[in-house]
Amino acid sequence: MEEVINLTGCTGTVSQLNYSGSTQNISSRVYKAMGFVLVHAGAGYHSESKAKEYKHVCKRACQKAVDRLRAGAMALEAVTAALIELEDSPFTNAGTGSNLNLCGDIECDASIMDGKSLNYGAVGALTGIKNPILVARRLLNEAQKGKLSAGRIPPCFLVGIGAQQWALGHGIPACPSEKMATKFSLSAYRRNKRKMEQAEKLETVYNPSKRRQQSSGTVSEIMVGHEEPMSASLDTVGAIVVDQEGNVAAAVSSGGLAMKHPRRVGQAAHYGCGCWAENARDARPYSTAVSTSGCGEHLMRTMLARECSTAMQTEDAHQALLEAMQNKFIGSPFLASEDGVLGGVIVLRCCRCGEDQSSDNFQALLVEFLWSHTTESMCVGYMSTHDSKARTHISRLPPGAVAGQSLAIEGGVCRLGVTD
Amino acid sequence: MEEVINLTGCTGTVSQLNYSGSTQNISSRVYKAMGFVLVHAGAGYHSESKAKEYKHVCKRACQKAVDRLRAGAMALEAVTAALIELEDSPFTNAGTGSNLNLCGDIECDASIMDGKSLNYGAVGALTGIKNPILVARRLLNEAQKGKLSAGRIPPCFLVGIGAQQWALGHGIPACPSEKMATKFSLSAYRRNKRKMEQAEKLETVYNPSKRRQQSSGTVSEIMVGHEEPMSASLDTVGAIVVDQEGNVAAAVSSGGLAMKHPRRVGQAAHYGCGCWAENARDARPYSTAVSTSGCGEHLMRTMLARECSTAMQTEDAHQALLEAMQNKFIGSPFLASEDGVLGGVIVLRCCRCGEDQSSDNFQALLVEFLWSHTTESMCVGYMSTHDSKARTHISRLPPGAVAGQSLAIEGGVCRLGVTD
Repeated sequence: MEEVINLTGCTGTVSQLNYSGSTQNISSRVYKAMGFVLVHAGAGYHSESKAKEYKHVCKRACQKAVDRLRAGAMALEAVTAALIELEDSPFTNAGTGSNLNLCGDIECDASIMDGKSLNYGAVGALTGIKNPILVARRLLNEAQKGKLSAGRIPPCFLVGIGAQQWALGHGIPACPSEKMATKFSLSAYRRNKRKMEQAEKLETVYNPSKRRQQSSGTVSEIMVGHEEPMSASLDTVGAIVVDQEGNVAAAVSSGGLAMKHPRRVGQAAHYGCGCWAENARDARPYSTAVSTSGCGEHLMRTMLARECSTAMQTEDAHQALLEAMQNKFIGSPFLASEDGVLGGVIVLRCCRCGEDQSSDNFQALLVEFLWSHTTESMCVGYMSTHDSKARTHISRLPPGAVAGQSLAIEGGVCRLGVTD
Repeated sequence: MEEVINLTGCTGTVSQLNYSGSTQNISSRVYKAMGFVLVHAGAGYHSESKAKEYKHVCKRACQKAVDRLRAGAMALEAVTAALIELEDSPFTNAGTGSNLNLCGDIECDASIMDGKSLNYGAVGALTGIKNPILVARRLLNEAQKGKLSAGRIPPCFLVGIGAQQWALGHGIPACPSEKMATKFSLSAYRRNKRKMEQAEKLETVYNPSKRRQQSSGTVSEIMVGHEEPMSASLDTVGAIVVDQEGNVAAAVSSGGLAMKHPRRVGQAAHYGCGCWAENARDARPYSTAVSTSGCGEHLMRTMLARECSTAMQTEDAHQALLEAMQNKFIGSPFLASEDGVLGGVIVLRCCRCGEDQSSDNFQALLVEFLWSHTTESMCVGYMSTHDSKARTHISRLPPGAVAGQSLAIEGGVCRLGVTD
């Protein structure tokens, strides 16, 4: 009673976009507990050599979420399971393997949103916790329990050492930062440090007046002309899920920009910017979930997660996302002074599907899912409870398209049905 | 060539609201540099005994902003001047006199937004800096200078010690926390600590299973039934400004909730939640600026500043704000589980006013300004460059109205004209 239809499989620049697709039927099986997950392992640049690793972690993350969904878990639990897998991979810029900041420390941002309760939890610049998403999730859970003593409102956003202490106090174990650093992140840090020191020397010689003030750390931030970009892992991982009841949840986690200023907080901790989930209600026909990736400041200032969620209430999902990415991101007045606008999103929307009802107990969910990015590439994976394994894909801008100015957009449709 | 017309002077619950007003003409003077400022010293409960102090600080803040506007300063500079005055008052919960957190420390949130460039700067859980708004402002300024070395994006949001170090590195002096605490904030902290300790004892005796886990600090957070509310200064100060060129700017600053968890970050540091400013452009006829106050989590989850800004593009400003406060705040699905929804906003919108043009060089701005709150009271002040002194007002819910469920809304119109 189920089918997965890939409606779309196109990649295009803004001007070249077309929306053709293929249809694929998959053998029917019936699960009582059903659901769907879409994950990403960053919008950035994925070399062919590393593609296998990124796909592999996306596959495992999808499997973890689907395992939870099949066991009857709600979207919030499944999305957390996917995030833990993504954070634990040393290849992603989240949890273990996160980029190091200007002082050589790992500071993580993460957030999670429950489309049913509309509750939200977030941590910023968190150190010494292996899975930042668990702290965000716990903040969300604790807030749902109601007020603290003397009518105090429980926090939904904690940062730095306060977030770490709160986590420890709620039974989440500490993890030495050394264990979260990887060979790659450490060698990238050393390379970046050298680049900045060389740049500083050049700047002092050629244009001392342009030197920027720097506050802390051992490396000075200075303005230079044309430098090599930072060596860094790709930005941000995330997942979005719909469960058997049609509830949606979204989550995001990031180690932030390489060589970022200590205690810089990016979009992954920012409400409306890193992730968004909102169940259908009244004049809102679709449940929607979004998770973003890319340049934190660009995603923050455009509130891209929430903008995409809002856009997805119009009829044509693909057109809605395309317009949101064009008008609210690439063409956003909030980023008018930027040379290029770098980011990516994964989006799903779902609604009850009334047709073909064979019994009173029949429930069906139509899930439309999409991804879009302005970066060179974006790695995604997706899986429904009806699938035997996850599908993964590295979406790339078409040849000749300019990152930051063009976009790719792809997606599919999944129809989930169950008789009980 | 100028007049100030108070169109509205009503206070009402949602169901009782009416929109009558009086008209007042003020003697004409001509200033080359013109502008308008509206400030607030918190939405909460202002006792009659303290009303004088709150009004006085609002008056001084307005005067500072207007002094800058008369000197030809832009909105961003004028709004900063108002905020410094508000932060420096020992009576407000921002900068000096901020509420103390669970560990007895002062941690401040602040943000600022420029409607012209749409740039934004914010700090969260900042310690040891007398004027948090200056750090937010400097972050905004530095980001406008473009990228850092090796193409790194400058931060727009820093927290905790990282924000403090960045501030010191950019020439903003440190201020010992002891100097920012006041007799009132210290005695409130001691009272609150006692209340929580008593509540903990009661809870242990009567309902040990309900005790909440506590992470850090010397005071435990526990669930109790009917306790006295925390002793605390009122929440958050803010200002909104329009300058002679019609540019708008908005800012907000807060010491946060009394006895908050260390490193809890509230709406004053949160993009879209604490303040919003957006100049008119294309299909956006009005420039709008908003600053919020109240329960941080309520303001965050409803993104109240941005929602009000968006609402103000419809024709009737009063009706637009009323509907936004009713539908996007009190009736928000994001706060459906809350008993009461506590907050307040100040809002202005302006547009070029074409009528009565007596020469080619005539420029006129029509500024509509409003405030609305669901708290018992809200203290505001406003002044244009044409006024000889600021007007201040403590807006209160009408007798019998329930805080958190009803609202008050008031405002006025100011027409600024100048011939050069």
